[in-house]
Parts: sequence; structure tokens; C-alpha cells
Amino acid sequence: MSSEFDLIKRFFTKPTDHTNLGIGDDAALINIPAGYELVVSTDMLVAGRHFFPDADPYQLGHKCLAVNLSDIAAMGATPRWVTLALALPEANEEWLKYFSEGFFELASKHQVDLIGGDTNRGPLNICVQVMGVSPERRALRRDGAKVGDQIWVSGQIGNAALGLAHLLKKIDLNKEETELALAALHTPIPRIELGLALSEFAHSAIDISDGLLADLGHILECSQVGAELNFTALPKSPMLEKYIATDLGKKCLLAGGDDYELCFTAPVEKQTEVKAIAKALDIPLTCIGKITRSGGISLLDPLGHPMPISQTGFDHFGL
Amino acid sequence: MSSEFDLIKRFFTKPTDHTNLGIGDDAALINIPAGYELVVSTDMLVAGRHFFPDADPYQLGHKCLAVNLSDIAAMGATPRWVTLALALPEANEEWLKYFSEGFFELASKHQVDLIGGDTNRGPLNICVQVMGVSPERRALRRDGAKVGDQIWVSGQIGNAALGLAHLLKKIDLNKEETELALAALHTPIPRIELGLALSEFAHSAIDISDGLLADLGHILECSQVGAELNFTALPKSPMLEKYIATDLGKKCLLAGGDDYELCFTAPVEKQTEVKAIAKALDIPLTCIGKITRSGGISLLDPLGHPMPISQTGFDHFGL
Repeated sequence: MSSEFDLIKRFFTKPTDHTNLGIGDDAALINIPAGYELVVSTDMLVAGRHFFPDADPYQLGHKCLAVNLSDIAAMGATPRWVTLALALPEANEEWLKYFSEGFFELASKHQVDLIGGDTNRGPLNICVQVMGVSPERRALRRDGAKVGDQIWVSGQIGNAALGLAHLLKKIDLNKEETELALAALHTPIPRIELGLALSEFAHSAIDISDGLLADLGHILECSQVGAELNFTALPKSPMLEKYIATDLGKKCLLAGGDDYELCFTAPVEKQTEVKAIAKALDIPLTCIGKITRSGGISLLDPLGHPMPISQTGFDHFGL
Repeated sequence: MSSEFDLIKRFFTKPTDHTNLGIGDDAALINIPAGYELVVSTDMLVAGRHFFPDADPYQLGHKCLAVNLSDIAAMGATPRWVTLALALPEANEEWLKYFSEGFFELASKHQVDLIGGDTNRGPLNICVQVMGVSPERRALRRDGAKVGDQIWVSGQIGNAALGLAHLLKKIDLNKEETELALAALHTPIPRIELGLALSEFAHSAIDISDGLLADLGHILECSQVGAELNFTALPKSPMLEKYIATDLGKKCLLAGGDDYELCFTAPVEKQTEVKAIAKALDIPLTCIGKITRSGGISLLDPLGHPMPISQTGFDHFGL
């Protein structure tokens, strides 16, 4: 057989768990259980835009799947299947070996089957589509936030952006900080279990890929509500705390993309359940504000005074 | 909102027919009817590899969807949903306008909903995933060919490759021929209705994207059978007939990619049904040979003598 098919076969054909027909035909065949909706999300990662062209292939394999799984997590759904389309400048076996290892390590952790895709020669480009299932009418949408809802964020935000700032030599992190920041940037953890637990009662959710203000902004726009955020409540690492007085620090916290934490809203009376989930999953969940009637985001300082907002997020064409 | 989202909204957000939640959330939500399998196919088209970087955007919008629909046709399934991920060197409004027109004209013809995707800045790259439905265990796979099956091809093959040869100035077609060849190359017609009709009784099918010998080869490999082809029976246009004595002509016919006709196998006793379908759909269907026990492809000249096969198809990494 020709080299293209050899490469696909060697690195990307793995046994599947819940697929009727996987890689090797014109299309894949899968079954969606009765009473479930299919949940579909697509992300394209472009060299020089979303990652450095010489990025570590293992981390890249992890990340291209993680960012898609994160979208499924934000819907409160269970990921099940994935397709992968790759354009590569050359068919480099070592690169493919490590890339596929990073990809499959994360895929098998969440029992996700690779069911199809495409490989081509061209400027490095990775297009991943994840499909999952969610009980009918259960999925966490962006349009369900209600006035009075508490706004919550998982984990810490801004670490990935701080890692990028370090790589761009805008700041100089120490060794321990660098490790934490680059792990956030290169090997983000999709919050699948959290999304599933929240789907029981949360009103809306989104994953933070473009920055807190931009992504929360999507919830507000879709739900036609506003938000009040307490600046000091935003969950940040001690290393980000060091930079919080600077523009860069604030930008990382408010507009830093690539964190893939979940931002969600839930009724006040469910805060006991939220705290129980945080404890059960060992994931910090922090209340950062509340949903209001009036449009837009008000960012409040410790005295309750509005702070100016200049950075609203990351836009692939807007930068 | 920022420019990326403006572009998506303006050109790619259209009403959907059979989608619970479309563009605008972390993921789309769709329902698969009970008793049906979901059919999933992905293709990535790279500038300079699959099309010229200055390709007409309307034709490109058509083609990137057509090649995916063709895979669904080859499964004998009904296409229903599509996602589109685009990397563009710049957010050119005019380009997007024509591209989206070509895309949606074909999509609405087949009642396919665009339910999600991604846009990025980067070297021109188009990744399309089509999803369809097929009654359980009905889909036309590559592994079902049986010894004694007749091998059929729809339409004419080699015209798209002839069009490419013309653009590369390897041959000089007249005006009428150029029109026919470039239509085959730029605006191929996915054989959806044909695939659906064949799914009633055909044993196997594939769409001809990499060339007849290569694609039939996939059926043979998956089905562990061989094939005898009658060279003179292969359906070709009068313009290809002119070149058939040359290496280039033979290569276009046997190994020319991009035709997106269907190659399928069916029991001899079903030839009346095949002919009835050809008449009902007004698509030429030609018997080009039969499935044999021994491996590989034997190509026979009019006297029944084997002909040498040097061209076996198109390989994106092998060329």
C-alpha cells in the first residue's frame, strides 16, 4: 500500500469500544442510544497561530484533543468518538509516533474512539471533531443563565496565558512556576466529570478558551442578561498574584485564553451541591459573581467600585 | 462582537431543518432517529495540494462539501449535518461570500444543515465533516464484495484528471471539452440518490476520489477478493477517447482522482435492478468487470489478454 495509508494504519488505527465501523471505509458507522442527543464540536489548530511550529508533538496530540473534549465538557456531555484531520509538511514518523501517543493517551482515558479522519501534505494544521452523547434536553447550553444565578469558575485561570507570556519572554518565571504555567498551556485537562456532574442542575456553562470576559460574554449575550464580577474573587495562582498589579497580569486573568476551565451559572440554592461536587472531584470551584438584569459585565474592585475593562478576550482574526 | 464572530455569523449562520442546537454554543445537538446508524466522514482540502490557491471560491465551497457528500453517497446513506473548519490567510469578505454561496447551494440541495465549525487565520485549509443516517446494517461497506459480483461504475471517469492536465498545460482541450473537464474537476456531483438506491441490494461501494484502480483496490483488499476489468468497457468521454492511446489518457482513466463517481459491486442477478436505477436517475451505469477469487486487479484488452498496470492511483504523500 502507499505511504499515506501506511502512516494512518500504523499510528492511528486502534481497536474501538463503541463503534460499528471505524477507520478504513468511506465513512464510519456509530449508534446513538435511544433517548440521547448527539453532541458535536469541531476545532482547528493552526501552526504559528495556536501553537509554535516546533511544538512538542506529544503535547500537541494531547492538546488538540483536550480543547475539543473541553467543549463537550462545557455541554455536560459524555465524549465517545473523535475524527482527526491532519495536514503535515512531511510524513515524519517520529513526529507522528509522539503525536499519536499524546492523542491516544487522552482518548483512552476518556474511552473515546478515533473513528476516521484524513491526512494530507501541507502547512501543519490539525482539525479535530469530537462527538458525544447527552440525555435529551439535559445539555448545558449558553442560553440558560438566569438573573440571580451565581457565576462559578473551576480551577485557576490565567496560568496558560502566563505560560505564553513567559515563552514570549515578556516575563521571567522561576522553574517551578514555569512548569505549572506550561502544563496549563500545553496539556490542559478537559473537565469532563465536572461538566457531567453540573448537567444535573446548572443553568448554563462554557469553557474558557478565549478568556473569562469573552467567554462569559457569550453566555450573557445568548441568555440576554448581564453580570457582576468580583475582581478579587477570581481564582488565581500565587504566581499570577505576583503580576496582578500589572496590565499583563490583569490581561492574563481576564482575557487569557487556553485555560479550558469551566465557567457556569447555577441558582443560589444549589451552592451546597456545587461545593459537594468540588469536594468529590477535588476541583476548586469558586463563585466569582452573579447574573444581573442589565447587559454587559461590571467588574467590581474590593470596595465595590467598577473597574475599567479594556481586554475582552482573544479573537483569531481580531488580534 | 469581534470580527471572527461577525464573519461566522454573517456568512455561515443559516436556519437549520433537523438540528436541536446549531452554531453558537460549545457544541451542536442533534437527534438520530431510532433504528438508524450515524454515518461520519471527514475530508481536509489543502491549498496547493487539492486545489490552486487562487481557486474560484464559489467552486471551492461546492467542492469541499461535494467530496464529503460523495463519501456519504458511497455508504448508501442520507446526508443530514455538516461542520466546516476554515483556515484563511485573511478574512476576505468577498471570498467568504462566494465560498459560502457555493457551499450552501449544494447543502440546501441535499437538505444538509451546517451545525458548527471553526475559523482561523492561517494557510488556506478547509476541513469538512459530513454526518448522515442509514438504517441499521444497511450501509454499503467496502468489505462486502463477493466472488462473481459484477463491478459497475457510474457516469464517466477520467474527465476531472483530464481537466487538471489541461490546466497544467499538458494537453490542450478545445472550448467545449474544457468546459466539460473543468466542471468535472471543480464542481463534481455527489451521487447521493444513486447510493441510496444501491443500498437496497449492492454488496459493496466506494467513491472514486483517488482513481479507479486505487479505489477498487480498497474494495478488493477489504473484501479479500480480486477483480477482472475490461479496459474497453471503462466509461469515458469522447474527449478522453482521443487520448486513450497515450500514457496520459490511460492514466486519467485508470488513476485519475477527483471524479467522485461510484464504483460498486452487485450480484449478477441484480443487473436488471441496476439498469432500472440508471434509467430512473438518468445516470449511466456501466458494468466494467467482475470480482474474482484471486487477489489483485487483472486489466484485460479487447482480446482478453492482460495489460500492464503501472498507475495505481493518487496518494497525497506518495506523489
